[in-house]
Amino acid sequence: WQETTGSEHFQKQIGFLAEVDRLKTVERATLLCDGSRRELTGEHSWHIAMYALVLAEHAATPIDIDRVIQMLLIHDLVEIDAGDKPIHGDHDIAEMEAIEQAAADRIFGLLPCQQGADLRALWEEFEAAESNDAVFAKSVDRVQPVIANLETGGGSWIEYNVSRKQLEDRVGWKVEKGAPNLWAHLQSKIAKFFDGTSAR
Amino acid sequence: WQETTGSEHFQKQIGFLAEVDRLKTVERATLLCDGSRRELTGEHSWHIAMYALVLAEHAATPIDIDRVIQMLLIHDLVEIDAGDKPIHGDHDIAEMEAIEQAAADRIFGLLPCQQGADLRALWEEFEAAESNDAVFAKSVDRVQPVIANLETGGGSWIEYNVSRKQLEDRVGWKVEKGAPNLWAHLQSKIAKFFDGTSAR
Ligand SMILES: [Ca+2]
Repeated sequence: WQETTGSEHFQKQIGFLAEVDRLKTVERATLLCDGSRRELTGEHSWHIAMYALVLAEHAATPIDIDRVIQMLLIHDLVEIDAGDKPIHGDHDIAEMEAIEQAAADRIFGLLPCQQGADLRALWEEFEAAESNDAVFAKSVDRVQPVIANLETGGGSWIEYNVSRKQLEDRVGWKVEKGAPNLWAHLQSKIAKFFDGTSAR
Repeated sequence: WQETTGSEHFQKQIGFLAEVDRLKTVERATLLCDGSRRELTGEHSWHIAMYALVLAEHAATPIDIDRVIQMLLIHDLVEIDAGDKPIHGDHDIAEMEAIEQAAADRIFGLLPCQQGADLRALWEEFEAAESNDAVFAKSVDRVQPVIANLETGGGSWIEYNVSRKQLEDRVGWKVEKGAPNLWAHLQSKIAKFFDGTSAR
């Protein structure tokens, strides 16, 4: 009997790990730094975990970097069902939230019960954006496309016709809240880009 | 003066994070679970960090899962310069090691000095495959393509004409060393695949 339980436990974990493979095929608005194609959510999740690891010292408050990294590894799993919602696009927020909650039910529900509940709680914490760890994780998630756009000469800012005011309203304050010195550092580059484009 | 130092510190970190974006374009032998294309190293690095997070309880020895995850996030950065070396391919090991050391010099060298040295030491620990954390990290890195191949009906095993003996010699003992119960659990599926293919 214990053998069987053990085997089911493995099956659930392996089933979950095979299912989340699909995050590698979800397309985002952001371009790769070389401009060759759009970024996919799986590789994005790796890259922002690297961002958190490298930039941890700039957090506005004390953080637990290990929790932040785990949070970022799982933060976009719901996109397997819900897709990516570009930050500069328009969405029905209540509808998106319902879709993401259903996605979380299904995806975290693939895991053994306690493990699924623990990871889902970490995802809910990220979504709530209130704890120190979540605030820093959000700032890292928001700043990565900014840096990718600066590297690609505008990237998704051009496509979505983003103004500097929109960038500040939708992105800037969130980065600043979690990593104020990082946002300050980027100001001169951001100013240079938006001053260099007319009618913004 | 301090302002300048701070700015250089940020520049190095952002330069590193923009450079490692290139790991998203390194192609591996393994197929995605849906068989649609080959896996890229950036998304692979995310996926095995997820593997470690989910499978940590099966480690053969006590491990620090946070160090393991950090190790796996950076374990393939050298492939930006060195490319992926398929486990079932043939390589000049001394030559590959020299190329990877040069890649590590360049890539970790982009970071502020102490941070680069710390992450490089973590990569060297992974490569040495001696510490408990590295042994478990290696087992996770090796088992992910096995599960992808089982999901895709053989995947890179068919392409490289891999026998069950080769799988045991090149992969099995490494998975078993770090996560013996996981390898035991996979035996029936592996047997079913290799028994189902003739001349293996
Ligand atoms: Ca690998």
